[in-house]
Amino acid sequence: MENGQTTSTRNGVGDVKKLKMERNTMNGATNGANGAPAEDQHHFLTKLMDMMITEGIDKANDRKNKIVEFKHPKELEKILDLKLKDPTNDDRLLDICNDVIKYSVKTGHPRFFNQLFGGLDEYTLGGAWLTETLNASQYTYEVSPVFTLMEQCVIRKMLRLAGIENGDGIFCPGGSISNMYALNVARYQRFPDCKTKGMQALPKICVLASEKAHYSVKKGAGFLGIGMDNVLPIQTDDQGRMCPKALEETIQDCISKGIVPYIVNATSGSTVLGAYDPLEAIADICEKYKIWMHVDGAWGAGCLLSRKYKGFMKGIERADSLTWNPHKLMGTNLQASVFLTKHKTVLLDAHSAKAKYLFQQDKFYDVSYDTGDKSIQCGRKVDALKVWTMWKAKGDAGLEEDIDNLFSCSRYLTQLAKARDGFKMVQEPQCTNVCFWYIPKRLRGKPETEEWWEQIGKVAPVIKQRMVEKGTLLIGYQPDGELVNFFRMVFANNAVTKSDVEFIVDEIDRLGCDL
Amino acid sequence: MENGQTTSTRNGVGDVKKLKMERNTMNGATNGANGAPAEDQHHFLTKLMDMMITEGIDKANDRKNKIVEFKHPKELEKILDLKLKDPTNDDRLLDICNDVIKYSVKTGHPRFFNQLFGGLDEYTLGGAWLTETLNASQYTYEVSPVFTLMEQCVIRKMLRLAGIENGDGIFCPGGSISNMYALNVARYQRFPDCKTKGMQALPKICVLASEKAHYSVKKGAGFLGIGMDNVLPIQTDDQGRMCPKALEETIQDCISKGIVPYIVNATSGSTVLGAYDPLEAIADICEKYKIWMHVDGAWGAGCLLSRKYKGFMKGIERADSLTWNPHKLMGTNLQASVFLTKHKTVLLDAHSAKAKYLFQQDKFYDVSYDTGDKSIQCGRKVDALKVWTMWKAKGDAGLEEDIDNLFSCSRYLTQLAKARDGFKMVQEPQCTNVCFWYIPKRLRGKPETEEWWEQIGKVAPVIKQRMVEKGTLLIGYQPDGELVNFFRMVFANNAVTKSDVEFIVDEIDRLGCDL
Repeated sequence: MENGQTTSTRNGVGDVKKLKMERNTMNGATNGANGAPAEDQHHFLTKLMDMMITEGIDKANDRKNKIVEFKHPKELEKILDLKLKDPTNDDRLLDICNDVIKYSVKTGHPRFFNQLFGGLDEYTLGGAWLTETLNASQYTYEVSPVFTLMEQCVIRKMLRLAGIENGDGIFCPGGSISNMYALNVARYQRFPDCKTKGMQALPKICVLASEKAHYSVKKGAGFLGIGMDNVLPIQTDDQGRMCPKALEETIQDCISKGIVPYIVNATSGSTVLGAYDPLEAIADICEKYKIWMHVDGAWGAGCLLSRKYKGFMKGIERADSLTWNPHKLMGTNLQASVFLTKHKTVLLDAHSAKAKYLFQQDKFYDVSYDTGDKSIQCGRKVDALKVWTMWKAKGDAGLEEDIDNLFSCSRYLTQLAKARDGFKMVQEPQCTNVCFWYIPKRLRGKPETEEWWEQIGKVAPVIKQRMVEKGTLLIGYQPDGELVNFFRMVFANNAVTKSDVEFIVDEIDRLGCDL
Repeated sequence: MENGQTTSTRNGVGDVKKLKMERNTMNGATNGANGAPAEDQHHFLTKLMDMMITEGIDKANDRKNKIVEFKHPKELEKILDLKLKDPTNDDRLLDICNDVIKYSVKTGHPRFFNQLFGGLDEYTLGGAWLTETLNASQYTYEVSPVFTLMEQCVIRKMLRLAGIENGDGIFCPGGSISNMYALNVARYQRFPDCKTKGMQALPKICVLASEKAHYSVKKGAGFLGIGMDNVLPIQTDDQGRMCPKALEETIQDCISKGIVPYIVNATSGSTVLGAYDPLEAIADICEKYKIWMHVDGAWGAGCLLSRKYKGFMKGIERADSLTWNPHKLMGTNLQASVFLTKHKTVLLDAHSAKAKYLFQQDKFYDVSYDTGDKSIQCGRKVDALKVWTMWKAKGDAGLEEDIDNLFSCSRYLTQLAKARDGFKMVQEPQCTNVCFWYIPKRLRGKPETEEWWEQIGKVAPVIKQRMVEKGTLLIGYQPDGELVNFFRMVFANNAVTKSDVEFIVDEIDRLGCDL
C-alpha cells in the first residue's frame, strides 16, 4: 500500500502489469462484467434512449396518465433498489431506471403546474442531451470554444431585450445565486475594499427588498456576511407591488441612522402573487440616492419577449442588474439562470482571483475570451446550449407566441374562476400566477369571520393531497402574510391548452366537492 | 397592450381566441413551422440522438481523430451560425448542432488530459440524459421523491467511505461552491449570529489554507464578506503539503493579535501538484485550538474508493467537513460535487430561510424529506442520478479498479519520463498529477542558470500551441510559485490505457524536437 507519505518509485514497475491494456474510447461499453456483448457497442445507452422516448416522454407526459405515482418515503425506499455496492448488469439497471421514471413526478406533463417551471420542449431537451454528451466546463475558450461564443450570443440577446446596449452577463446555477451575484457586485462597486478586507472594513450597510421578494435575497445576505436582519422589508400595495413611497422613507430612515442602503432588489414577477414592482418609480429613487438597482426577474422577465406584456417591466433599462431564468417562463430545461448587468467590467472585477493554472496570460489566442474568472464557480456546467437550441428553433416570434399563450391562459383561468361558484380570487393576475381560494359548498355565502377563514385555510392542503394521490393535476398552495392557504396556479408549462385550463377548475371542484 | 399598471379583465375574453387549442404533450414536435411532418413525432430528437452516438461519441472520442479542431474566436464566430432571431427548421438546426460537435473540444477523447476531468462513461452519460428527460428540481420530496432518496443514498455511501457514521451532505454546483459551504457553515457553527446580524457583529476572523490551496477559498472569502486578505497562506513542504508546524505558528500568531482563525482548509489533492496535506497532524492542531477542519478533496478524495491509495487521506474521519467531486477522479459527468459534514444539522441551521410557499409544514407526508432548505440554491438541478447510475453499474469494485488504474498510469508516466532524455520531473506524484518540464535538446546538460530557466519557461506554451493545432493531445501547463511553466499531466480520464501513457512522452518529444 502506498500510504501517501512515501514517494517510492517501485510502484511504477509494479503497477504497469495491472495497467489497463486496451479500452474502448467509451468506458462502460467495454466493461464485460456488465453483461453487454462486445459487439453491442452502446447497449445500455441505446436501450435507455428507447425507454426515455417511450416511458420518459410519450407515456409520462400523456394527459391520460398520472403526473405522479405517489409513495411515502418509507414505502418508496422499499420499492427502489438504490443500494450501492455490487456491480449491476445492464438489464437490471435498466429496470431500475424504469422505476426511476415511474415514481418520479412528470414535470413535462401538461397538467404539472406545481412550480415555476414545467413542460418539456423538444429543442431544449435536445440541447441538454448534447450538453451532456460533450461534457464541457466553461472556464476558458481553450476547453469551451463553442460554448464561450454561444453564451456570449445568448447573453447579448437578453441584454438587448432588456434595453442594455453594452453590458455583461453570465449563466449562474439558479436564480438564488444570480441574486447573490447582484448583492456582491453591487457591494464591490460601492465598496471595492470588501473583496480584500471583508465586511468589517465597511460602514454598516443594508439591502432593501419588498416584503414579497424572493427568500434568496435574505438567504444571500446571510451567506454573504451581510446578515439576514439587514435586509429591510419594504411595504407592498394591495397587489403585492413595492410602494415607492415606503422605499424612499426607509432609505431616508437608514441614512439618518448612518446605515448605507447600497442595493434595492426590485421584483419582476413575485413568487407567489406574480407582482411586478414599478420599475420607473424605483429607478427614480435609486438614481436620486445613488443606490444600485437590481431587478429579480427570475420568474417574470420572460415578458420581455412579448410586445404585449413587456410593459410590466417598463424602466428595466435603467436597472443596474437583472436576474432572468430561461428555465421558468421561457420553458428551457433546468438549470438556466442569467445574471445581467449594464456595468461592463464589474463581474470580472468583483470575482476574479486570477488563478495562474487556469487563466495563463501567455496563451496563443486572445485570452479575453477566457471568461471563467467572472464566475464564483471554477468548473461551470454549460447552460447556454439548451437555451440556444430552443431559441434558434423557435425564433423570437415562436418564443413570443409561447409567452403570450401562458399569459393568456392565466387571464382565461381568472375569467373561468370568477364565473364559477366556489372560487374566490386573491387578486387579478399580473404575471401568469392565478391565486385563489376554493370555497367548499358548506362555507359558500357565509360571513367571512375569523373561523370561516380558519376553515378555508385547511381546504388547500386536503385538495392538494387528493391531487397528488389521484395524480391528475399538480398545483402549489401556501399562506401569504395575513392570507390563509390559497392555490397559486402558475403557467410556465407550454404544453398547456385551452382545455387544460378548463380542466383545472373542473378538477378542483371535483376534488373539493365533499369538503 | 396590457402595460402592467391596469388589471382589466377584458384580456380574458380577448385572449381566449388566441389560446392554443391543441398541443401535443411535447412542445416543439408539434411545431409545424419547424418542418417536421406531423407523423414524425420526435423528428429532431431522434436525428440528434443518432448524431450524438456517431459524431458526438464514436467519432469524437476515437484516437484516430483530433481532440480539437481549433479556430481562433473571430474565425469561429464566422463559421458558426449562432445568431438568434428567425425560426430555424430541423435540418438546418441539426447541421449547426453538427458544427457544435465538430468545433467543441472532445473531453471524452482518451487523450484529453487538460483539466481535472475527462473521459465519457456510458453509465454516467445515461444517467445525465435521464436527468434531463425528467427535468426535476430538488427542493422537496413532493417534486423529487426518487431523487431525494437517491441523493441521500449517494451521500450516505460517501460519508461511510470518509469514515463518518452519522453526518449530512448535499450536492453543490461545483467544488468552489462546496468549499464556500464549508466557509459558511463553519462560521455559523462558531458564530451563529453571523447569519442574522452579519460579519459586523463578529470579532475579526480569518481562514487558514496552504499556499497551494485552490483559489476558490480566496474567492469564497471575498464573496462571503470575510475578505481575501483574511485567508492566511500556510507554508508547504517541498512536496507541496501543508506544514503542520507553520499552521500552528500562524494560529498562535493570530490569537496573539486577537484574530480568530475559525477554519482550516486542508487540501487532499492540490490542483497543480496533486499534494495531499497531512490530515492527522492538521486534525491534532484543529482539535487543540478548537478550529473547524475542512478538507478540500474536490480533486483527490476519489482515493477513498481505493484500498491501495486511501492512505493519502489518513485522518479524514476527524475532519468536520469534506468537499468531494465525483466528476473529477470518479469520472462522472459534470457537474457533481458533494459537500459532506459530520455535523448532522449544521447545513439546515446555517442556510434555512423557511420559505412558506415551498416548505409548507401542513403537507400530508413527512416533511423532513424536504431537504432543499439546506442549500443556498432554491431550484437545484439533480446531480445524484448520473453518479448513482455509474456506481450502481460498476459497483464499489469497478470504481476501485478505475481509481487504481488512474493512479497507476501516473506512476507509469513518471517512470517513463525519468528514463527519457528531455523530461525533468518537478516532484514525485501523490495524486495522479505528473508535473514535469520538457527540456529542448539545445538546453539539455547545460547549467541551470536564471537564463536557462527563463528559456525553459517559454517551452510549454509553444508545445501547448502545437498540441492544440495538431489536436493529438491536450495537457495543461502553468507556473507555480518560483517554478517556471511546467506541464501538469493529470489522469482523470478512464479511457486511458498503457499505450496512451506511452504516447504522451513520445508526442511531447515530437512536438518539442526543434525547440
